[in-house]
Amino acid sequence: MDILFRNVLILADPSTGKVQKGELAVHEGTISYVGEKAPATTYDRVIEGENNLILPGFKNAHSHSAMVFARSSSDDLPLSRWLNERIFPLEEHLREGDVYALSKVAILEYLSSGITASADMYYFPEEIAKAGDDLGFRFLIVGTPKEDGEGLDEFIALCRNYNQNPSSLCHFVPGFHAEYTANEKMLLALSKASHELNAPVWAHNSETFDEVEACKKRHHGLTPTEYMESLGLFDYGGGGYHCVYFSPHDFEIFQKHHCHFVSCPGSNSKLASGIASLTRVNELGINLALGTDGPGSNNALDMFYEMRFASVLQKIKEKKADAFDGLLALKAATIGGALALGMEDATTLKEGNKADIVMLDLKRPSMQPLNDIARNIVYSGSKDCVLLTMVNGKVLYEKGNFYVGEDMSSIYQKAQEITNRLLKESEAS
Amino acid sequence: MDILFRNVLILADPSTGKVQKGELAVHEGTISYVGEKAPATTYDRVIEGENNLILPGFKNAHSHSAMVFARSSSDDLPLSRWLNERIFPLEEHLREGDVYALSKVAILEYLSSGITASADMYYFPEEIAKAGDDLGFRFLIVGTPKEDGEGLDEFIALCRNYNQNPSSLCHFVPGFHAEYTANEKMLLALSKASHELNAPVWAHNSETFDEVEACKKRHHGLTPTEYMESLGLFDYGGGGYHCVYFSPHDFEIFQKHHCHFVSCPGSNSKLASGIASLTRVNELGINLALGTDGPGSNNALDMFYEMRFASVLQKIKEKKADAFDGLLALKAATIGGALALGMEDATTLKEGNKADIVMLDLKRPSMQPLNDIARNIVYSGSKDCVLLTMVNGKVLYEKGNFYVGEDMSSIYQKAQEITNRLLKESEAS
Repeated sequence: MDILFRNVLILADPSTGKVQKGELAVHEGTISYVGEKAPATTYDRVIEGENNLILPGFKNAHSHSAMVFARSSSDDLPLSRWLNERIFPLEEHLREGDVYALSKVAILEYLSSGITASADMYYFPEEIAKAGDDLGFRFLIVGTPKEDGEGLDEFIALCRNYNQNPSSLCHFVPGFHAEYTANEKMLLALSKASHELNAPVWAHNSETFDEVEACKKRHHGLTPTEYMESLGLFDYGGGGYHCVYFSPHDFEIFQKHHCHFVSCPGSNSKLASGIASLTRVNELGINLALGTDGPGSNNALDMFYEMRFASVLQKIKEKKADAFDGLLALKAATIGGALALGMEDATTLKEGNKADIVMLDLKRPSMQPLNDIARNIVYSGSKDCVLLTMVNGKVLYEKGNFYVGEDMSSIYQKAQEITNRLLKESEAS
Repeated sequence: MDILFRNVLILADPSTGKVQKGELAVHEGTISYVGEKAPATTYDRVIEGENNLILPGFKNAHSHSAMVFARSSSDDLPLSRWLNERIFPLEEHLREGDVYALSKVAILEYLSSGITASADMYYFPEEIAKAGDDLGFRFLIVGTPKEDGEGLDEFIALCRNYNQNPSSLCHFVPGFHAEYTANEKMLLALSKASHELNAPVWAHNSETFDEVEACKKRHHGLTPTEYMESLGLFDYGGGGYHCVYFSPHDFEIFQKHHCHFVSCPGSNSKLASGIASLTRVNELGINLALGTDGPGSNNALDMFYEMRFASVLQKIKEKKADAFDGLLALKAATIGGALALGMEDATTLKEGNKADIVMLDLKRPSMQPLNDIARNIVYSGSKDCVLLTMVNGKVLYEKGNFYVGEDMSSIYQKAQEITNRLLKESEAS
């Protein structure tokens, strides 16, 4: 399949904010040309850009997609009641097939927000991968060996199977939920898996103040980051989700091991966890990515929200309107996310890179006038600006419609049925 | 013109969050029926709702619409440089006709966000009114007598002319920019105008810490709120924009005079001003409304952003995930805004009220599943959910298109030309 984007403005490298007019060609899932005038071959489709903007698709570096069942059924509660009275009792009743069906709703929402790939961590990880592959969406799935650390060989085989399978859009890396829900036997097994696979390790890290304090008590004063490092979990890099309460030494460890810092400002503010220091991340040259977190806590799966939150919450935190330039948020949502997801060939729009592309409608009133298009995206963009989302060279979303091989309404209906069942069963038990 | 909304879910009173299935009929700009089954008369148009949601249009309680020229040309700067190096030099070159043309872009954006009325305060106030009337959009315009307090009679006549003119959608009330840019002679004239018109007085109030401290120094320890009260400016009510640094006594004054508290969380965070205490406003029973502020500071004119910001910034401020229920934000964006704008008949969807209505697409993935529709709006809603915006019984926005009697592209082009001219002239001078 050969596709040509014609008459487009191109934000090839979002970190520069620089836009050029031209054409972009796609051949079999890969960008084959970016520049003024593409080769005059025959294209299967010519997309008339009408001077709208294309840029690399957004990368969502942290989510629990299937948690759409919890959206708006668990708001405005303190964190402990949210987890113990709502989320855990609902999750208890998840059955085989649920995560597959629920993840599809999230994929539609990612596409509607210009997101072309997402990291995920949840129960039934192979169902997440199947949802991604069936709809044509990319996932980096963070999987965990069994609680007692057993089944390590199967876990390593699972990772290898997916990561070496050219027909899957999904990759697996080792990780675990968080220090406070993990036992050391499993973590040592995970460390072994990381060394065997030469793979980074991911986990929720220092999301709340209490989490850090409890970890220090359990592990001779070590923070979650220090504890993970002590187990060799960062020997092949890795990263942390949230990282709201990071000590100077935690930052040093991330810097030393080239770990990725994934901030989830939407979730952290809604759950009142706090504001991570993204200015510090930037000063230290640590790679920053943004994550929506799951729809049970955020509740929007929307990279526009995350970019804006990332930037303005830093301004509030630092009490300086010039803290954390909006361009840094745009970079984190694209380049930073791609690096965190291990997709070095999906950072920018250039020849040979993945054809994971979003087209934004510059004729929305929020994009007018065209003073600084990149900052328009961060500070006044929203989902209504997304004209088209392409993953792996395929248009999966265009002008409000989804092209994922399955009817939107049947996806919604199945998710609603599962949600109703979970609510019913959790109330009954 | 008689219009019927059929097969809709109706959120008649957003403060309850309760949704009922039914029909809503509109006759000549007024809601003529809300319930299960509308009278079987002939309708000029039947809008098939397909089980989507209608609710009262959002009311934007503070803006400077014409400042679209400054959007994204003045981001990521400290407040003083933002004002003195960007905004003021640009504003200096505003000419007759500019505010009229620029305000139209903002009106389109309001409509795309489901906003049916906006308060405004800016240069050339009659041009704002003309833009509203020409496009069919409602403005409450806060006008000011001349700096020296002269021209008071003309100002009062202007207010009366608009407020008694049934063919205008715009009203005028007295107000002024802020204590720090006002002289007492003008304020005394304004107080006189307020008493003569029995009208509330509006102003920016306590947006920054420094503003309050400087006011105290100038006025024997009085805060801006106390100073305004001392001049009789709240004798007929009124309100304040921003109100980030309010003392307990300031809150008491607002409570006593039934003043409206307009919070602008998007602007206050982007300019690092701080977080107003909306939980306190709520505890005291003061009417709360939300404002986008102008596109020079926010930059989005988007009530979904403001609702979400209003709620989650309180959670961050109070360090409690259950602080400030999302429903309170939805109430502020609809009922609270209508009351602040003096539109008591635009608060809820009921017979006799204004036909200012927004229809939201519940088939967007961010609205699925349907657990709690009202909280879905606040926590995962965005402009892409707006299917239709009706003002005064007329559909001005539907499925991404504008029906305002003027071509969108000509509106954009004029605004871009003016913006380019302002940038050029401000650089040259």
